[in-house]
Amino acid sequence: MASWEGRTSRITRPPIAEINRMAGELEARGEQLINLGQAVLGLPPPKSALMAVRKYLDETSVCGYSPDPGLPHILDKLVQFLDEWKGISGAAREQLLLTAGANQAFVNALLAITQIGDEVIFFGPNYFDHVFAMELAGCIPVEVEMRRSQGRYVADIEEVRCRISKRTRALVLVSPGNPTGSLFPKEQVEELTRLCKEHDIWLISDETYDLLTFPPHVHVSPASLGIHDKVVVVGSFSKSFGLAGWRVGYLFGPLAMVEETIKVQDTIVVCASVPSQYAVLGALEETLSYRSKALEALEERLEALLAVVDASTLLSGYRPDGGTFLLADILGPQSSVDFSKTLLKECGIITVPGSAFGQFGEGRVRLSFGNQSVEVIQEAGRRLANWERELG
Amino acid sequence: MASWEGRTSRITRPPIAEINRMAGELEARGEQLINLGQAVLGLPPPKSALMAVRKYLDETSVCGYSPDPGLPHILDKLVQFLDEWKGISGAAREQLLLTAGANQAFVNALLAITQIGDEVIFFGPNYFDHVFAMELAGCIPVEVEMRRSQGRYVADIEEVRCRISKRTRALVLVSPGNPTGSLFPKEQVEELTRLCKEHDIWLISDETYDLLTFPPHVHVSPASLGIHDKVVVVGSFSKSFGLAGWRVGYLFGPLAMVEETIKVQDTIVVCASVPSQYAVLGALEETLSYRSKALEALEERLEALLAVVDASTLLSGYRPDGGTFLLADILGPQSSVDFSKTLLKECGIITVPGSAFGQFGEGRVRLSFGNQSVEVIQEAGRRLANWERELG
Repeated sequence: MASWEGRTSRITRPPIAEINRMAGELEARGEQLINLGQAVLGLPPPKSALMAVRKYLDETSVCGYSPDPGLPHILDKLVQFLDEWKGISGAAREQLLLTAGANQAFVNALLAITQIGDEVIFFGPNYFDHVFAMELAGCIPVEVEMRRSQGRYVADIEEVRCRISKRTRALVLVSPGNPTGSLFPKEQVEELTRLCKEHDIWLISDETYDLLTFPPHVHVSPASLGIHDKVVVVGSFSKSFGLAGWRVGYLFGPLAMVEETIKVQDTIVVCASVPSQYAVLGALEETLSYRSKALEALEERLEALLAVVDASTLLSGYRPDGGTFLLADILGPQSSVDFSKTLLKECGIITVPGSAFGQFGEGRVRLSFGNQSVEVIQEAGRRLANWERELG
Repeated sequence: MASWEGRTSRITRPPIAEINRMAGELEARGEQLINLGQAVLGLPPPKSALMAVRKYLDETSVCGYSPDPGLPHILDKLVQFLDEWKGISGAAREQLLLTAGANQAFVNALLAITQIGDEVIFFGPNYFDHVFAMELAGCIPVEVEMRRSQGRYVADIEEVRCRISKRTRALVLVSPGNPTGSLFPKEQVEELTRLCKEHDIWLISDETYDLLTFPPHVHVSPASLGIHDKVVVVGSFSKSFGLAGWRVGYLFGPLAMVEETIKVQDTIVVCASVPSQYAVLGALEETLSYRSKALEALEERLEALLAVVDASTLLSGYRPDGGTFLLADILGPQSSVDFSKTLLKECGIITVPGSAFGQFGEGRVRLSFGNQSVEVIQEAGRRLANWERELG
């Protein structure tokens, strides 16, 4: 088995797993590492989430399968959530599916929508798991570069138009973007949605970081616009509610499409973990207050990280519109992988090299602020400054 | 969207979901239904499983991602389990992956092993989700019929040999089989494993019902034989430990292959639900006692169901070797779908029509005994007898 014969030979090992492996070796030697790698919210979930789980833990129904789409009364709560938080009104319960995280929702959508050989357009620097999903599904990934302009990553809609072919089946939008943290402004979301309608292609909108958008920026879901039917929302409770370990997300789309995704759902997971579904039921009771708390923590941490980046002679950053990370430029000749490795070795700081996010991520490094306190981020800054002084 | 354009058009809606939908309508009208449809173990999980979840529920680590393969100390317990219960000795932790159920383990294996267009051989009557996975993955399903012989479903190994082509990448074994309940005897497992070695193809062994095998029958894992390297075990905690709703299973294989499946794991689910991993940690403390209790309950329920089938003029059954169901023959001209619908309408009994299990399931109906008490199964018998009397 020296060279692998299966389709996974076309995809790389998950970059975060690789870095965590290196980090594990250093930690085993007693090093105190600072993890600016993983893009999670370092806050416990809403109390109501764990309370709901405890409450239902003894009911036998928790240990049996739920219907493939999820428990009906929890889907009803999600209908309300879509209305209140995304302006998606009039959704039916049957348009929703609880999934084992947003990734699985994306895979469901992709497998339901596409045939082998279909092209899927997306923006880069990209979220790698989406591209891996396309490779596994036998789709052809078509990447459109977002460029840094006035401190944000901006898409060129005309370029998207040029890349649409007869084989294009879907456009993928991640807003706020991972790893960019940049939001697609309302006009661009409208323009892209109209473009998809014009060419009768699907728009898959990954809204994992929807609630973690910093004011005055506002997340706009293409499903709220009433422009195009073929819009699928991929959602997550991992980041906005601190429930990453519970592996639960959702999918929202037009009825006929959701019926098709149920086939994929049954084939892959049958249903989302039932206790995790109850965690969502509880979490949704505290959306407003939890979001305020999360945003407050995130903005403090972001300020701390921006100060670190501003003071650095090796990095150049910008203020993201949302999410839990920023993608800084590396001011030097090192490749992003070498830079990340050096940073880990010299400063004990875990980051994700930009090349993990595709061809347009090279020369950059993703720094997460969501998972660390202000004090720890400042400590990362001191380590970086010390190292930069040593370098001269 | 009248005719669906995506690849899911080639697969049917999950049959159990369809039947549950019909049943839901009847229940809404106040009918008291008896569910002999779903193939689950109708027992609460081991106490130790829920205790472990409660214990760790307040730890923040429960809410964060675990490493993609699962928490190391839980994987270590699974190494022990493989040794004690399957005779798979000397496994390394790195050969294991905790998944969001056995289906996801199967999808992981299939996507890691195959290229689009590869043929995969399996036995019918088949477990439909495996075939759906092949369709979604762009593989070509090659079905070999198992035939009823002396009260069991038996595979013809020579036929398997004839169906192997240059494009064959894998053979799938489900033992005890779903929906047949028939075990592959040790000699056949050895023969099939040798056949795979001879042709250098993978053997994917779905061992979901491994612990639920009725003495004197003994489940034999091809991974325990030391015959062939390319063996993948797909395992479940849903049935053997009553943890279906927690969506957690596992995959075991050779190191290089498991490394590849981690890519699929990250793309689809990142990791299994962390609270569910803890449920497994707890459950594995009670394997011996829980299994005794489960087998005792299952054997009583099986006797009750066999009595119902023996007394019926519409059905002809047999004693399965393991699992929680049997696949009875329908003694009459009705298609299996019509028979299942009539049984639901006339007797309020939910079953799964044999056609759900592929071309070789037609004319049969799957009756589950695992999920109902002896009393309820006897009540199903009374309803069936009454109806048969009415029919004359």
